[in-house]
Amino acid sequence: MSASMDLSRMCSVGLLTHECFDDLGNFIVQAEEAGHDFVVTPISHPTFRRVLNEDNATDKETQENWKDRPVFNRNDLVIKSAEWSGKAIGLLANWIHLDSTNAEIRLCSELALKQEIEWACHISLTGLIFPSLPKGSLFNTARAINNAVRSMSFTQFLVRVPLTDKSAVQSNLPWKQWNRLRTLTEYNTKIGVVLELTSELPIDEKLLNMWLAEPVKAVIVPAEIFVENSKGYPVLTKPHQKFIKKLMDKMKPDMIVTLPNTPIHKLATPSSYSEYISFLNRNLPELQDVDKFATGYQDYLQAPLQPLMDNLENQTYEVFEKDPIKYQQYEKAVYKALMDRVEHNSDIVTTIMVVGAGRGPLVNCCLRASEKSERKVHIYALEKNQNAFVTLQNAKADVWGDKVTLVFADMRKWKPATQCDILVSELLGSFGDNELSPECLDGAQKFLKEDGISIPANYTAYASPLASTRLNNNVAAYKDLEHYETPYVVMFQQVCELAAPKPLWEFSHPNKQIDVEPMNNLHNVRYSQVSFDVEHDMVMNGIAGYFESVLYKDVMISIRPETHSPGMFSWFPIFFPIRTPVQVPQGSTVTMDFWRLTDAKKVWYEWTVSVYGSGGQEMTVLPIHNVQGRSYYVGL
Amino acid sequence: MSASMDLSRMCSVGLLTHECFDDLGNFIVQAEEAGHDFVVTPISHPTFRRVLNEDNATDKETQENWKDRPVFNRNDLVIKSAEWSGKAIGLLANWIHLDSTNAEIRLCSELALKQEIEWACHISLTGLIFPSLPKGSLFNTARAINNAVRSMSFTQFLVRVPLTDKSAVQSNLPWKQWNRLRTLTEYNTKIGVVLELTSELPIDEKLLNMWLAEPVKAVIVPAEIFVENSKGYPVLTKPHQKFIKKLMDKMKPDMIVTLPNTPIHKLATPSSYSEYISFLNRNLPELQDVDKFATGYQDYLQAPLQPLMDNLENQTYEVFEKDPIKYQQYEKAVYKALMDRVEHNSDIVTTIMVVGAGRGPLVNCCLRASEKSERKVHIYALEKNQNAFVTLQNAKADVWGDKVTLVFADMRKWKPATQCDILVSELLGSFGDNELSPECLDGAQKFLKEDGISIPANYTAYASPLASTRLNNNVAAYKDLEHYETPYVVMFQQVCELAAPKPLWEFSHPNKQIDVEPMNNLHNVRYSQVSFDVEHDMVMNGIAGYFESVLYKDVMISIRPETHSPGMFSWFPIFFPIRTPVQVPQGSTVTMDFWRLTDAKKVWYEWTVSVYGSGGQEMTVLPIHNVQGRSYYVGL
Repeated sequence: MSASMDLSRMCSVGLLTHECFDDLGNFIVQAEEAGHDFVVTPISHPTFRRVLNEDNATDKETQENWKDRPVFNRNDLVIKSAEWSGKAIGLLANWIHLDSTNAEIRLCSELALKQEIEWACHISLTGLIFPSLPKGSLFNTARAINNAVRSMSFTQFLVRVPLTDKSAVQSNLPWKQWNRLRTLTEYNTKIGVVLELTSELPIDEKLLNMWLAEPVKAVIVPAEIFVENSKGYPVLTKPHQKFIKKLMDKMKPDMIVTLPNTPIHKLATPSSYSEYISFLNRNLPELQDVDKFATGYQDYLQAPLQPLMDNLENQTYEVFEKDPIKYQQYEKAVYKALMDRVEHNSDIVTTIMVVGAGRGPLVNCCLRASEKSERKVHIYALEKNQNAFVTLQNAKADVWGDKVTLVFADMRKWKPATQCDILVSELLGSFGDNELSPECLDGAQKFLKEDGISIPANYTAYASPLASTRLNNNVAAYKDLEHYETPYVVMFQQVCELAAPKPLWEFSHPNKQIDVEPMNNLHNVRYSQVSFDVEHDMVMNGIAGYFESVLYKDVMISIRPETHSPGMFSWFPIFFPIRTPVQVPQGSTVTMDFWRLTDAKKVWYEWTVSVYGSGGQEMTVLPIHNVQGRSYYVGL
Repeated sequence: MSASMDLSRMCSVGLLTHECFDDLGNFIVQAEEAGHDFVVTPISHPTFRRVLNEDNATDKETQENWKDRPVFNRNDLVIKSAEWSGKAIGLLANWIHLDSTNAEIRLCSELALKQEIEWACHISLTGLIFPSLPKGSLFNTARAINNAVRSMSFTQFLVRVPLTDKSAVQSNLPWKQWNRLRTLTEYNTKIGVVLELTSELPIDEKLLNMWLAEPVKAVIVPAEIFVENSKGYPVLTKPHQKFIKKLMDKMKPDMIVTLPNTPIHKLATPSSYSEYISFLNRNLPELQDVDKFATGYQDYLQAPLQPLMDNLENQTYEVFEKDPIKYQQYEKAVYKALMDRVEHNSDIVTTIMVVGAGRGPLVNCCLRASEKSERKVHIYALEKNQNAFVTLQNAKADVWGDKVTLVFADMRKWKPATQCDILVSELLGSFGDNELSPECLDGAQKFLKEDGISIPANYTAYASPLASTRLNNNVAAYKDLEHYETPYVVMFQQVCELAAPKPLWEFSHPNKQIDVEPMNNLHNVRYSQVSFDVEHDMVMNGIAGYFESVLYKDVMISIRPETHSPGMFSWFPIFFPIRTPVQVPQGSTVTMDFWRLTDAKKVWYEWTVSVYGSGGQEMTVLPIHNVQGRSYYVGL
């Protein structure tokens, strides 16, 4: 249990009722007394259903008058005034049938929906919940909702989606209906999800985790899914607890409980259910350093660094030097290299060149490794950023002394007098080669003796298909081609990987294939095609990229989820958008084609995605993105 | 056979050779003497293949030097100078392998491709032909072509595509490869097709007609597919002739023939093949009036008329009054209505109101029908356009006299003193109701007696899925959302319907369901979902719309292809774009959802398209287009 409670992680807890209370104020007071922050209640009484005129009981004039100017009779309303609007979320009528085959019922359903929404907006309700989506076609439902939410600003529109369908618990039927709705409404940011948990959960965790990629703004935990513990109190099963905690951690949704009509848990009181939810909320797994470091950056799109073209700022160095793991791994790598290269008690001085020394953290690593291994070293610290170079001079004057020689130069151009035994660099980006480590080390490897060691020895780019409504919308908000063809560095939060990442390509150093002065950069061109089998119906919004790097022998650093160096926070993943969301039907194969390309002045990526059915038929092919680096490139 | 030859329909005819002539000038002179307008020849000799270095015969330095600065040895070139560039199309090397699994061969292939293209552009060749696409993956081919054509402006890039694949003549395998290429390159307008005919043709005409939707810039007719006629001359089979004529008629491609290496047709001379092609070209089916009328309008996107909001110009009336069929049908309809309504020799005067009389063509129809049927009539001619009304006054003064009463009014507001027997209007748009005929006639039907007749009696909107690269590109050229969500009136030419149109909805007049003064327009809301089974792999670029109308009993007018009134040219079809091309795999179902919607001020359509696999799985769902009429509407 965490010592101090983090208020920023606490979810509001509300009480849902389908009953239509005449005295709503009284119900709200009672709900608050039982520890609820808000209530969820129908907006109108079932009497309002007469406007559908299903039984033709209403005279034509009355009906036509209503259709022309829909106005509420106050007796039809449960939420009668703005008095409680801050405390209440409204349930939209569950009898509307927007995809009825009867045109008149469709039309009147839409008018009734609009009438409820307009009233809710008029009294500034914070939220509205649309009933569970019908099975089958919901094209007119989607069209009507899409039109109706256009005028909404303050009030949030949520669609109720059960986690599972009774007829097929181990599938994602309700998600498919939601997916169809949001595809038809083009990821309308005014439409969110309230996810209703069910007693049975799918066993395949993917079917749960895919909700992390959806705009889940609230979660309903009905009393009926609670079980009784040995003492008679209502509790949730372990899988339910785990899933709810994950939702709380990633989405911070409003939590909504219900009370049973007739008692089902012996010792339950009206506050038991909300208290249990709050208990789970207080007991989320503690935040990691990396999470704290990343606060505010989750799912935020950052442009990747271009350290070759731009000089880093002091603050950037400051942040990255604090990584508790990265420099530990570098120290280990240098230590092992020294141990392998020089015998104990030898007088040999190993020459180490740190290329791109920044403010000196790698120099310190090398010095610590030298001390620990009891091997003598001399270090050249090379840096092209004039500002960082001042800090290096300070360190040399104050700490390093003669053990370190400073060189102010660009590693691609410097001509050293001697060669080194070990070349140490930290030029990796989130995708490995995306900050031009290959090009820089091509230039620097002439500093290295024939049998010298490069740390890192190699690095591999990984990619996987990703779903994320939030990332999709963040890119779409820019409304231009460029942002759809630019990779971003992102701390993933509300995302779901459709399949585990696969390797695209690798770079190894030193590269024995190239000349001392390579004429051009063609040897750093890469192309890879990778395919992923997808078991469930899913949607894809982009590509997640990672790297994995061998520093030296078994010393690695990695941000690939499966092998992520624990606690290392220097790199967030990289995210490559795609220009339209892609439907990925059950049993189909997602193929990605990825290129790393270059001309005399720049390096860029191009990528595309295609989907094939189980019979191999082409379902979707996206155009190749970022043709000739038109939207994004890294300058040489 | 047409009396006068229409030069604007004549295609150039070229001669293709794969031989590498040392004296290209001589070959061109010979080809011209044999009646060819141009030649198609390799750009480089097979010796150039050495740059792939497949056998590692080239020393490393030479190879690396070439890779860095690819320059031609003049002995490698067949087209050595710009001297013949106006007379020659170049064949790109057929040994490049851009999707080789060998990265070095991929790279050198791309460099060689670029080198040939750059040379061809330097000497201003009019065109370049890329060899037939490889089977299997062609992602890197697509990427390399897409990049290579970026710098091309004058010279046209064409991809050679055989009409059929020997392994599967009754399918569209080569088209699928082409489709993948153009999808990956996002309908790049710089990439066209040269279609190579094959001996065997697919029996299903759809597999031929789908090429009419592609950017076929040239057609190769190899000597080998000619057969010998009874006299020993080379001719083509009837199906080949028919298909070639269709291509000539719709696409006006460059035609390219070959000569056999060893004679295969007894009496063939070097000019036989080109002469036969020119013979077919001279014997295209004669142009219809409607084609002449439409010259220059083929596949051109016109905004539909909004006659309710805007007044038509005199010229517009002038054009539409010339329709030879439309007014004939109206006359017939009025004639039959008069015959049905009034007995022979009766003195009863039938009151006819022509609403939206324009410059009076329908008034003349009614007068002719009256004369022919020997039934007395009095006609009210109602018009809201003050300019057209002057023409009506002229007609009354000069011709009509007392038989016609002129009324200057908007039919939705005029209050007549008497009611009429027959209400005649011509308010239909290409989609039937898209120029607001329903709303206008709702307002006008109060002029009609209880048992009166409306001409037209009803009209139905039809829609079908359509492929068309040209229409796709015409819409895409605008680069904004609005143009993707606006319907256009288009004279279709380079299009292919994926399936026959189906009816969406109908309007009937008079509408007995509504009050004399309807409060609102909700009764004119429509929604329809239609599905189309598609037999072959296809692509869909938009929706074709048509109307069919019953004027009176069996008197119809229609622009639906299956029932099109022969010779009627007043309406081109309507085209609804979709925002991204949709892949339609073999055996899948295309579903369209279409809405006609209204509020107090406007009428608009929304539409969407989705594709389902044979198992019902969702492959593609497009967002709903033109939400709330945001991009296009018709003002009330």
